Amino acid sequence: MEREQKGILIVISGFSGAGKGTIVRELLKKYDNYALSVSMTTREPRPGEREGVEYFFTDRKHFEETIRSNGLIEYAPYCGNYYGTPRAYVEEQMEMGKNVILEIEIQGALKIKDKFPESLLIFLTPPSAGELKRRLEGRGTESREQIEKRLVRAAEESEGVEAYDYIVINDKMEECVEELHGLVEAARRAPVRRREFIQEIRNELKGFAQESAEP
Amino acid sequence: MEREQKGILIVISGFSGAGKGTIVRELLKKYDNYALSVSMTTREPRPGEREGVEYFFTDRKHFEETIRSNGLIEYAPYCGNYYGTPRAYVEEQMEMGKNVILEIEIQGALKIKDKFPESLLIFLTPPSAGELKRRLEGRGTESREQIEKRLVRAAEESEGVEAYDYIVINDKMEECVEELHGLVEAARRAPVRRREFIQEIRNELKGFAQESAEP
Repeated sequence: MEREQKGILIVISGFSGAGKGTIVRELLKKYDNYALSVSMTTREPRPGEREGVEYFFTDRKHFEETIRSNGLIEYAPYCGNYYGTPRAYVEEQMEMGKNVILEIEIQGALKIKDKFPESLLIFLTPPSAGELKRRLEGRGTESREQIEKRLVRAAEESEGVEAYDYIVINDKMEECVEELHGLVEAARRAPVRRREFIQEIRNELKGFAQESAEP
Repeated sequence: MEREQKGILIVISGFSGAGKGTIVRELLKKYDNYALSVSMTTREPRPGEREGVEYFFTDRKHFEETIRSNGLIEYAPYCGNYYGTPRAYVEEQMEMGKNVILEIEIQGALKIKDKFPESLLIFLTPPSAGELKRRLEGRGTESREQIEKRLVRAAEESEGVEAYDYIVINDKMEECVEELHGLVEAARRAPVRRREFIQEIRNELKGFAQESAEP
């Protein structure tokens, strides 16, 4: 029964600086039943970005065709470019029993929950806002202005966290990976993901009940 | 933050023969943040049953007074006797951060969920109906008729399992205890149980955002 279960669609969002990238990478490294969805975008690749790894890069015409052919499970424009999640990969992996991770922000997350009510929405946060600020400053790669922009954005994002199924605090990386995995394991025990099992045991029990009703 | 959290109210139901008693006992033995609620009943103690361990035994008059004074969080009549869950112990333990376990059947479970939407409803089941039958027969303490009654009852109960948050298969006892504990740990990450944390981080982030808006 267990092994036949379809994979779970997992949306991971979180404040910039919450450590999403690291956590997801470690989860993929540690457990083999996860797969990471790669987004499609019309923006230009940045130096070092590889086709099919960071993104699938495409042009506006092809992106819009993909929208029309229902080839994306969600998409949104952002700063003049399109970003979206190709459907085929997600569905294939889930059928194979893999839990598919989407790293997207709240608007996308809500669209996913709307279309896939059984998806699991997880919001990752540092232990405090002060710690978030320290992490952003500690990177040393961003200007004061960029950091302030990210903090303003985080304040906005914090308004939406109740829409998520779980809020996970990324304090120690390894513990956080285990917590995430534990949430996914828990989700597999929800009745919506036990439908076949429930139906089977119900039928069998009814069989027993009928037998004993016979003289 | 984590340590300040209130305990969770956990309802554990399951087919007779699913092994609820053993699992709950092992969970209490292994982790010290659980407490077991003891029901109050008007039925006579059976040989070996101890006051305050299996039940709090009382008379109908006192039970009805307790109902009127709102001293029970749920109660129900069953076979001419009352059964109920005393409020004080449950609330005290939860305030102290203990996860309080109620071992009750579905009608009681639904009443609890109704009054305490944040409670966690867990249904325990053997891996199959066949296994349930074998376990009941293996006890060797019950007549064929009693076993058949239990199976008919299980068939009825199986109709209600979708009302539970989780369905846990008790195949190997130790794994099952860990699964249960994992579900409770997961539940602590839900936004309803992170309210203070969310409010705190929100306020702090807003503070940062305001600072950076100043010239």
